[in-house]
Amino acid sequence: MPDSRSRYSVAIVGAGGVVGHKLVEILEERQFPVERLTLLATARTAGSSLLFRGRPLTIEPAEPERFEGVDIAFFATPAEVSRNLAPEAVRRGAVVIDKSNAYRDDPEAPLVVPEVNGGALRGHKGIIASPNCSTIQMVLVLKPLEDISPLRRVIVSTYQSVSGTGREAVEELRSQSREVLDGRAVEAKVYSRQIAFNLLPHIDDFTPNGYTKEEMKMVTETRKILDRPDLAVTATTVRVPVEVGHSEAVWVETERAIRPEEARAALTRMPGVVVEDDPVRAVYPTPVKAAGRDEVFVGRIRRDLSSERGLVFWIVSDNLRKGAALNAVQIAEALLRGGLV
Amino acid sequence: MPDSRSRYSVAIVGAGGVVGHKLVEILEERQFPVERLTLLATARTAGSSLLFRGRPLTIEPAEPERFEGVDIAFFATPAEVSRNLAPEAVRRGAVVIDKSNAYRDDPEAPLVVPEVNGGALRGHKGIIASPNCSTIQMVLVLKPLEDISPLRRVIVSTYQSVSGTGREAVEELRSQSREVLDGRAVEAKVYSRQIAFNLLPHIDDFTPNGYTKEEMKMVTETRKILDRPDLAVTATTVRVPVEVGHSEAVWVETERAIRPEEARAALTRMPGVVVEDDPVRAVYPTPVKAAGRDEVFVGRIRRDLSSERGLVFWIVSDNLRKGAALNAVQIAEALLRGGLV
Repeated sequence: MPDSRSRYSVAIVGAGGVVGHKLVEILEERQFPVERLTLLATARTAGSSLLFRGRPLTIEPAEPERFEGVDIAFFATPAEVSRNLAPEAVRRGAVVIDKSNAYRDDPEAPLVVPEVNGGALRGHKGIIASPNCSTIQMVLVLKPLEDISPLRRVIVSTYQSVSGTGREAVEELRSQSREVLDGRAVEAKVYSRQIAFNLLPHIDDFTPNGYTKEEMKMVTETRKILDRPDLAVTATTVRVPVEVGHSEAVWVETERAIRPEEARAALTRMPGVVVEDDPVRAVYPTPVKAAGRDEVFVGRIRRDLSSERGLVFWIVSDNLRKGAALNAVQIAEALLRGGLV
Repeated sequence: MPDSRSRYSVAIVGAGGVVGHKLVEILEERQFPVERLTLLATARTAGSSLLFRGRPLTIEPAEPERFEGVDIAFFATPAEVSRNLAPEAVRRGAVVIDKSNAYRDDPEAPLVVPEVNGGALRGHKGIIASPNCSTIQMVLVLKPLEDISPLRRVIVSTYQSVSGTGREAVEELRSQSREVLDGRAVEAKVYSRQIAFNLLPHIDDFTPNGYTKEEMKMVTETRKILDRPDLAVTATTVRVPVEVGHSEAVWVETERAIRPEEARAALTRMPGVVVEDDPVRAVYPTPVKAAGRDEVFVGRIRRDLSSERGLVFWIVSDNLRKGAALNAVQIAEALLRGGLV
């Protein structure tokens, strides 16, 4: 049991959202040494309350003064909110762990998946960025391969669940599914088109090069986390009618051939990764099985039959946990271990 | 109006299945010159009846004698049924168009997508194979690119609907979806696991090399249809909770760079292909939009940012129409045009 000097004042900005809720849940689950928890949000959800350690906490409006005395501030907010408020928190002495896209490309801000590049936290300047969900689960699997032989090329197609968009998207998937099953007209509000029993090759906005921002995040974030600024990465990101859990079909080419058994052995040793790979017995990761779990699951590991330096696999993880809230809390834990708060 | 000498006795084996029904529908839609239509099936569905040109036709048991006098026999049957009965049909003078996997690898049997390699029909020996759904839609898009510059490598991830498995799978998706929405226990019969709001990286059986048969079909069939026996093709095939319409995220490398505009222009000219590619206006193919349509839709056409010889795109098609019944009927039409029946 840590004494009171090793307990911290923690704030969660964006506490009213899906990831905010998960942060509260995971801080409690992992017995994070919270002295005081402050829940903040923009006007829309301020006023509602959440249970933490059995006691209701009211979500307060996110004003800069609320960061006085806060040691660690988790931001689960849109990028513009992070850009406005994170510097206010840092100015008042907090370390910010930001889940948004605001600081991921900032060379001053480490972009961290603790099992992969926890060392990047040393010398941080107050703001640490947590990567996008689809990147986190991929780099956890890429890192042990990169350590065997440098990666030359990564090609990924994603199958991303609607909870990545937020609570309204989960409700839209459920209500549209009922509409389709009942033969009623389908109403689309959150997405531009029907998502129930459908697929949308469209996540986040399109950029002038024809890729979505989500696809570009997978390129730039993977390069930064693996410290491989020139790594060839190509992504197609697709929204699928799944509630929780993102999946990815990945093809990589490495400098020297990595045998599937060698990859499996390295991935089995990787913290945070679980190999589920016995397809003949129908053992492979699926989003329904991965939902609610902390680990990143990998299976279907096999050689590219037309290139001995090619390897193919299938990665699934809970996008709300390791893909969002859990990774942020693990960053905080690594900061504490390293005496970096 | 063709005279009676240019009308044909047609049989459909497997008339009770999803593809069998589509064959009846499409023969009527396209005013195929049918003189007489014989519907055949194994014991399970024999006895039921289907409407053709407003008249009910009874499905009869598929006995070899039924092929007497038949000119064209469509097989929408499991491979072992095709292997048993197709030679009986040929022996009695019919030309067989087989949708199963039985003859696709047979060097004596052309494997045909008419717009791509219709010429392969010349000199057929009585059995013509129609490719797997996921291959058909991909080769229609690959062919115009191959004609600009030879392909060096194809990497594809699929998003395949449950109707590819059959009618019971569509019912299972619907009933499981209701079970999930109502918070009831989910029952899986057709698939090894829950498919509603889930993904299964598992289509057809696994082979010893770690790939499924579905994935290997995409390799061997693409090579045969494009007449590129050494083409590097790697596939990951995934079942998704969509009723009708298969989608594919495809990455290709070509000998020389093909600009996206050049690819779009070539694909716009390709019969059977429709370019839907204005992503900023949310114009891209989706399975719900492609269902019930004859064309193969392609969009999200963009350059691989890390390789100027790399091109990425997204293909969607109705797996029951162009992916199955329509392609078979188009093969028959090509045979008639070529005087090959």
